Amino acid sequence: MITKEILNKLVKILGKNSVLTSDVDLVSYSYDATADMPIQKPDVVVIPDSKEQIIEIVKLADQNNIPIYTRGSGTNLCGDTIPVKGGIVLSTLKLNKIVKIDAENLTATVEPGLVIQRLNEAIEPYGLIYPPDPGTVNTATMGGSVSECSGGLRGLKYGVTKDYIMGLEIVMPNGDLIKTGGQTVKNVTGYDLTKLFTGAEGTLGIITKIIVKLIPAPEFRRGMLAVFDDIDKAGDTIADIIKNKVIPATMEIMDNVTIRTVENYSKVGLPVDAEAVLLLEVDGIKEVVLKEAEIVETICKKNGAIDFTIAKTDEEREKVWAARRAALPALAQVKPTTVLEDATVPRSEIPKMLKALKEIAKKYDLQIGTFGHAGDGNLHPTILTDASDKEEMKRVHLAVDEIFKVAISLGGTLSGEHGIGLAKAKYMEWEYGKEGVEVMRKIKKALDPNGILNPGKFV
Amino acid sequence: MITKEILNKLVKILGKNSVLTSDVDLVSYSYDATADMPIQKPDVVVIPDSKEQIIEIVKLADQNNIPIYTRGSGTNLCGDTIPVKGGIVLSTLKLNKIVKIDAENLTATVEPGLVIQRLNEAIEPYGLIYPPDPGTVNTATMGGSVSECSGGLRGLKYGVTKDYIMGLEIVMPNGDLIKTGGQTVKNVTGYDLTKLFTGAEGTLGIITKIIVKLIPAPEFRRGMLAVFDDIDKAGDTIADIIKNKVIPATMEIMDNVTIRTVENYSKVGLPVDAEAVLLLEVDGIKEVVLKEAEIVETICKKNGAIDFTIAKTDEEREKVWAARRAALPALAQVKPTTVLEDATVPRSEIPKMLKALKEIAKKYDLQIGTFGHAGDGNLHPTILTDASDKEEMKRVHLAVDEIFKVAISLGGTLSGEHGIGLAKAKYMEWEYGKEGVEVMRKIKKALDPNGILNPGKFV
Repeated sequence: MITKEILNKLVKILGKNSVLTSDVDLVSYSYDATADMPIQKPDVVVIPDSKEQIIEIVKLADQNNIPIYTRGSGTNLCGDTIPVKGGIVLSTLKLNKIVKIDAENLTATVEPGLVIQRLNEAIEPYGLIYPPDPGTVNTATMGGSVSECSGGLRGLKYGVTKDYIMGLEIVMPNGDLIKTGGQTVKNVTGYDLTKLFTGAEGTLGIITKIIVKLIPAPEFRRGMLAVFDDIDKAGDTIADIIKNKVIPATMEIMDNVTIRTVENYSKVGLPVDAEAVLLLEVDGIKEVVLKEAEIVETICKKNGAIDFTIAKTDEEREKVWAARRAALPALAQVKPTTVLEDATVPRSEIPKMLKALKEIAKKYDLQIGTFGHAGDGNLHPTILTDASDKEEMKRVHLAVDEIFKVAISLGGTLSGEHGIGLAKAKYMEWEYGKEGVEVMRKIKKALDPNGILNPGKFV
Repeated sequence: MITKEILNKLVKILGKNSVLTSDVDLVSYSYDATADMPIQKPDVVVIPDSKEQIIEIVKLADQNNIPIYTRGSGTNLCGDTIPVKGGIVLSTLKLNKIVKIDAENLTATVEPGLVIQRLNEAIEPYGLIYPPDPGTVNTATMGGSVSECSGGLRGLKYGVTKDYIMGLEIVMPNGDLIKTGGQTVKNVTGYDLTKLFTGAEGTLGIITKIIVKLIPAPEFRRGMLAVFDDIDKAGDTIADIIKNKVIPATMEIMDNVTIRTVENYSKVGLPVDAEAVLLLEVDGIKEVVLKEAEIVETICKKNGAIDFTIAKTDEEREKVWAARRAALPALAQVKPTTVLEDATVPRSEIPKMLKALKEIAKKYDLQIGTFGHAGDGNLHPTILTDASDKEEMKRVHLAVDEIFKVAISLGGTLSGEHGIGLAKAKYMEWEYGKEGVEVMRKIKKALDPNGILNPGKFV
């Protein structure tokens, strides 16, 4: 519990309007976008508008052992912004400026509270893109996506958030302000703190500035849809495309459960009897894109695609991606609770993983729809359930355990892009072993000795 | 000093032939490829052939506070393998296997002692490349280049070593064996230990296995040479090429001092009166490469290139790159000592940096030849001197100080690709501040509390 004295000090630092304590406000910050998680109100919500204020808040919290939960838009999917130990929720939403767009050096400098899409819009006139493309691009903040190291649809060709973070400004738990990395493409000065803080889930410091790398926008793209009556054929197709040296910007898969649900929800004309569809996009220079699209078509047909469509216009392209974007909302409306995972396996193991998911659904008598980023092995098995059905939830938890067990046994990982947070903390040792987790704990303890930053999470 | 008892224990772990103590052997491990560095013999050199042996050695060293200096081929350029505090040099050269090439998942798993070029040769039949391309590719080991995070000629388009390291197996200072990352493109499970240990210069753990990302080999490439009578025109050309959305695989610059020296050394037909030459290569799919080469030509001519050559055959291409490769050996034969730096600035600041280097040379009455990776702002100012000339060396040291001061004031970094090690340790705070260096020290202390790994270096 935060004392009156601490509250007064916070008001002194921030002004009255930026310190929220009403029950309505606290409830709004007691959960995030993650399903099947505990709800916990913070003691206070603060909304600083400068790094100087953040430094003061952090010092106060560190001296008094008060937890700080840094929060952007709360769109994460691992319970990472839930203030499980109470204390302070620190919202970054007022630190939302684009500090600089440097087209010559292909970089931009932004504040953490900036919504990703605002950056995309600002750099479009320069013919540049910021490739990380999480599904929540219209709501998620840059700070949140750096802290979670978001993935997205373009990971296969373009990589994930960490591949585009060149430098950070960070307030450390003791109030020190540090700068990591910078504007140069090459930088090997000391430990790579930029990469350490990217994906650290707000447990090591509070990010106050971000330098990102931008790249030229592709001049041309082509979307494609391939339909399969056998999930193995879809898996072989994925492998063959890569083997033929084509790296699509996007290569998504949807299984039969997802196809049926999407079609029922949005009537875009998907083949409801298909076992799998692949949605693909190649991009780049026009001549190359056309050549690559041809190679993809040949491979899909050779592997027995029962239907293959090329989106030749922007509208047709839009239709292909509308189907993919509908996957999660469509699945989410089937049942009250949607448990969305992001177990990831090496690309070649996707057919095995898809088969295992089918068996797990059968074994625990659950509805599981699977879609995801097949190109990089990052699947989203989605369990459709009801959190109020205690008996079913028990089976859900057993199924989730088994999903992670299989993913790791196939050489995969607990999390391709959602992070660990609260939701997957208990599985950490399965992937990293006691020794590996211990290394992370030592780093945490060294940099945040009082454990004030995002306590109760994976580390 | 290592006691007889410790030596006996080492012999027990490794066998007699893998424990070297003769003076000739110790002298061979007392220096590395870095100029103007102290020489220090270790007490013993060990050459383990398994990770189990490494674990035993590390445990023994940790219990007895004995320094361990891990060493591949010793080609680094920051004094990182010099055993300044004596103790053990641990050579990785017997751990040199390619464990697996997984063409389907575009990965390879290798041991640290493998020479980079051996990997390149092994993956060539699969039509794949490992893009990091340090100048020492024929001698440097994978473990060394991961620990130093090597850069190279292809950094602009393809990035540096850390962009291709997917997972590591590491022996920690307490003897724990941990695994980081893996074979999946996406992995956000916990802190990114893979990136933390890449570029950690052997101060946090001993790498025993490396999983690297491979990419399809470009099908076509085109080399070009542009000559300028004004260094600013070359700088503008670099900026314009990027602005026009062409990202060459290589974009190298040589200044007049370097041009003259190279021509004098290797007679490849360089224009000795030119103020700067740019050496460029675009690669990828043939149609695109031809189009990009055309754009590059137009930009070079528009910016006043007084000569422009396209290498149309492999022989012509070879000639272009022979000139670039001759830069360091040519400069090195002018004087007995070659102090090679790698100060790096944002691309747009290259003209300013080049001008500053000229002024520094004049101010301290030194011969400085500059060449380097202009595309990524990574220059190699090279001071031609004589370590036995104490008076001149004083001026050299002042000039080096000033080079780093200018680089940092231009928003640059101490090291683009060579690392900090012993050579640049004293400059660390200039870039990271007291607070930033303190963060690195805390991490080091947490993971290596007895300070046994590569002591006396940057952290």
